[in-house]
Amino acid sequence: MLPPLPWHYSGDQLTVEYRTDPLAIAALLPEGVSLAHDDEDPGAVAFIWADWQCCGDDRNELLDPVRSQYHEAFVVVRCRYNDVLYSRCLFIWVDRDFALVRGHLQGYPKKLGSIHQTRPVTRGLAGPRLEAGATFGMTLAASDRRLAQATVTIEGESAGNGFVNSHAMLHHRWFPRIELDGSDSLSEVVTMSGVNVDLGPAYAGAATLEIFDSPTEELLAIAPHEILGGYFRSLGSTFNGGTTLED
Amino acid sequence: MLPPLPWHYSGDQLTVEYRTDPLAIAALLPEGVSLAHDDEDPGAVAFIWADWQCCGDDRNELLDPVRSQYHEAFVVVRCRYNDVLYSRCLFIWVDRDFALVRGHLQGYPKKLGSIHQTRPVTRGLAGPRLEAGATFGMTLAASDRRLAQATVTIEGESAGNGFVNSHAMLHHRWFPRIELDGSDSLSEVVTMSGVNVDLGPAYAGAATLEIFDSPTEELLAIAPHEILGGYFRSLGSTFNGGTTLED
Amino acid sequence: MLPPLPWHYSGDQLTVEYRTDPLAIAALLPEGVSLAHDDEDPGAVAFIWADWQCCGDDRNELLDPVRSQYHEAFVVVRCRYNDVLYSRCLFIWVDRDFALVRGHLQGYPKKLGSIHQTRPVTRGLAGPRLEAGATFGMTLAASDRRLAQATVTIEGESAGNGFVNSHAMLHHRWFPRIELDGSDSLSEVVTMSGVNVDLGPAYAGAATLEIFDSPTEELLAIAPHEILGGYFRSLGSTFNGGTTLED
Amino acid sequence: MLPPLPWHYSGDQLTVEYRTDPLAIAALLPEGVSLAHDDEDPGAVAFIWADWQCCGDDRNELLDPVRSQYHEAFVVVRCRYNDVLYSRCLFIWVDRDFALVRGHLQGYPKKLGSIHQTRPVTRGLAGPRLEAGATFGMTLAASDRRLAQATVTIEGESAGNGFVNSHAMLHHRWFPRIELDGSDSLSEVVTMSGVNVDLGPAYAGAATLEIFDSPTEELLAIAPHEILGGYFRSLGSTFNGGTTLED
Repeated sequence: MLPPLPWHYSGDQLTVEYRTDPLAIAALLPEGVSLAHDDEDPGAVAFIWADWQCCGDDRNELLDPVRSQYHEAFVVVRCRYNDVLYSRCLFIWVDRDFALVRGHLQGYPKKLGSIHQTRPVTRGLAGPRLEAGATFGMTLAASDRRLAQATVTIEGESAGNGFVNSHAMLHHRWFPRIELDGSDSLSEVVTMSGVNVDLGPAYAGAATLEIFDSPTEELLAIAPHEILGGYFRSLGSTFNGGTTLED
Repeated sequence: MLPPLPWHYSGDQLTVEYRTDPLAIAALLPEGVSLAHDDEDPGAVAFIWADWQCCGDDRNELLDPVRSQYHEAFVVVRCRYNDVLYSRCLFIWVDRDFALVRGHLQGYPKKLGSIHQTRPVTRGLAGPRLEAGATFGMTLAASDRRLAQATVTIEGESAGNGFVNSHAMLHHRWFPRIELDGSDSLSEVVTMSGVNVDLGPAYAGAATLEIFDSPTEELLAIAPHEILGGYFRSLGSTFNGGTTLED
Repeated sequence: MLPPLPWHYSGDQLTVEYRTDPLAIAALLPEGVSLAHDDEDPGAVAFIWADWQCCGDDRNELLDPVRSQYHEAFVVVRCRYNDVLYSRCLFIWVDRDFALVRGHLQGYPKKLGSIHQTRPVTRGLAGPRLEAGATFGMTLAASDRRLAQATVTIEGESAGNGFVNSHAMLHHRWFPRIELDGSDSLSEVVTMSGVNVDLGPAYAGAATLEIFDSPTEELLAIAPHEILGGYFRSLGSTFNGGTTLED
Repeated sequence: MLPPLPWHYSGDQLTVEYRTDPLAIAALLPEGVSLAHDDEDPGAVAFIWADWQCCGDDRNELLDPVRSQYHEAFVVVRCRYNDVLYSRCLFIWVDRDFALVRGHLQGYPKKLGSIHQTRPVTRGLAGPRLEAGATFGMTLAASDRRLAQATVTIEGESAGNGFVNSHAMLHHRWFPRIELDGSDSLSEVVTMSGVNVDLGPAYAGAATLEIFDSPTEELLAIAPHEILGGYFRSLGSTFNGGTTLED
């Protein structure tokens, strides 16, 4: 499940940005990582749905598409580490094992979920066009419980698709000792950014976001206090390895 | 699972057309239905993969996309009934229950399967563009067995996306008595065609198709003798009821 | 998906019986079917989870178990038809297509869902024994929403496993015309009962049941007003055809 | 997904033991690990299917069974490390994410698959009893391809359920650096054994095993040359941490 680098991704992202209590975010950051500064909107959160197709350099997976497509929903905040501003993924769900395992290698705390998002279409009556008035729906479930649902209604083209997920990612790669005695076999701080980033036009508009309670999730702790906006963008990106900051 | 008519569909179709033994097709036609004429290419078959989004007139399902998207793979031949040439679906698999139940109402012999097809992309390196040289892969599985896999490689734009699935459909709607004594409670011959058909540009090219054996399927009986070609097309269509020909 | 009769079933049933408003049940009965009499506890409901293994007479499916196992959750009330007291299934979910299609033939209004129930075990610490104090959990979800969850805690052996699902079943088999013009192609009233019924010992105790709202379901209308009890039983049964009462 | 220790497991195991080419096994062992000795049957392999229920000490997962049940298929050989004979898992598939992640922590190279096995039943005609003549079927698929299918036919009770999976497990826990430059962040050799092992009676008999080709798997390399036998056993076991042998 770990093909040789690089790993290429092409897909559609639907983003809802909102503000929550900065203290709720701080409570989810590990030691050594701090909130974004007061003038950096430290309570800002991006809840992002993505519909991905991916492959290695030989593109073999594209011909066996059961191994090249997955959905993803993830929650991103910003944080500071060694006085640098990073994006950071607090929670992430995918719907295929290869995406789960590759994400763990990168430091994403991936779990399996059931993830859906409306697709834009170019023909017929069963989907929005990429134009003002188009509404998209997004849903996330895990363990047979709906965890979140959201909508984005496009108002027009936009310079970008949000500010929260716009920095290099700061991940912790953590692996406990098999003794599970509280000590770690692996505890690294890493950063990664996509390369070959190929951005389609961005569209912005109004958004809604509902978070539901679950005995297995901590999403309610960062429920929205204020919706900032919603976005749609098609994009491509390549993962060609990250950088270990601390081990 | 049966919302009021009309039902709208938007999606992408990948088609492989091929020839098999006409006698193998004849063996799969019910009494009263005969092969296309000798000068109508009676052994022609279309194996079609489709990635659909669908909704009713209020478009509510689009905001809860777990209820609006499904994949489909189906096998179409042509036949004659009352001296009219029809398209006819021999086998069909979908991956969601609402599509299964709506299909049974229409007369499609739908079963559940696992169905995947490469998506064209507009950004990044993880997918083909709609242009010469682009290759798409399609797979079908049921009961944990791969039943078919195929590829289409685009050579250029095309006037159409095949001739086999181009007529009104002829379905039998059949329901045995609960006594299962060999008599039927329902035995109808119906026809249906999409309305509001909104066709995107068609692309044609070379194709491959492999059929695999399974203890639960009859696909091998109509395995390809000669590949005719492959196609990609985005399209929209609406189902607004069919017509009973015989009851 | 319709093997020759008979169809054999072996499995475990967990039942929660409760009372709801009889008028809410009446609103879900079709014309010609009436509530059980006042002295027959007309508001009684059984919410039943079952973990089934099934096969035809040649037992071939048992060697390809992906085709022989499914989970089921269903809601049963009693009703009167032609002055006879019947059990009647208001709602039912299964997790496999073969169970869906066979159920439609029998007249069950089956939909797909995600269904789980605790299994009793005989070894180790990860499951209850069939004895006083043992607690079982049951859950039902559809379209990525939890619809119901329940528990049964055994207090001891019992003469039976409830009274609601104890009569012959009264089903309506209904199929609209493909014109979807409000008229029907098939509208039958049928009854069926299992044969070769092989009952294991029954266990009874306390129960809980929670019903959750969903935009696609009507379960809340018959939410529990009073819990009557809970049951566990292993059993076998055979379907060898039903009887048409009215067509 | 990592509850506090201990983790309890109860379930049924179906095992097929066979011999393959010892050199094929040797090719799958990492440096520092060698084949079992010539007089220890170094080509022996156990292909094991298991149907598990699991929970932590508070047993909460048992009441939300979507989080407590999973299927597993795995391939075990024996090997020598520091002159001690161990069991070693070469390949393993599970059908739930929590089992995948917990397995990675333990050092199991888990992937997601679709896994089924016949269940013994005590009532009705749809399943074998635990007695001579009972036949069980087991299947494994991944990425929509059948990878293996097997049967076990019980001939009688047995002192054990095989010799290959009977030693402490030797796992490598390996995590590459995020630079994916060929160096590792984590490379440990660990061992683990279940505690609280609670064994039900074992049943032995004849077995069959078929392995199928797949572009993503290496199972064919260790296809059976000679079937040794098959087994059924219900058992319980607890994981309470392992021991790091080398880091």
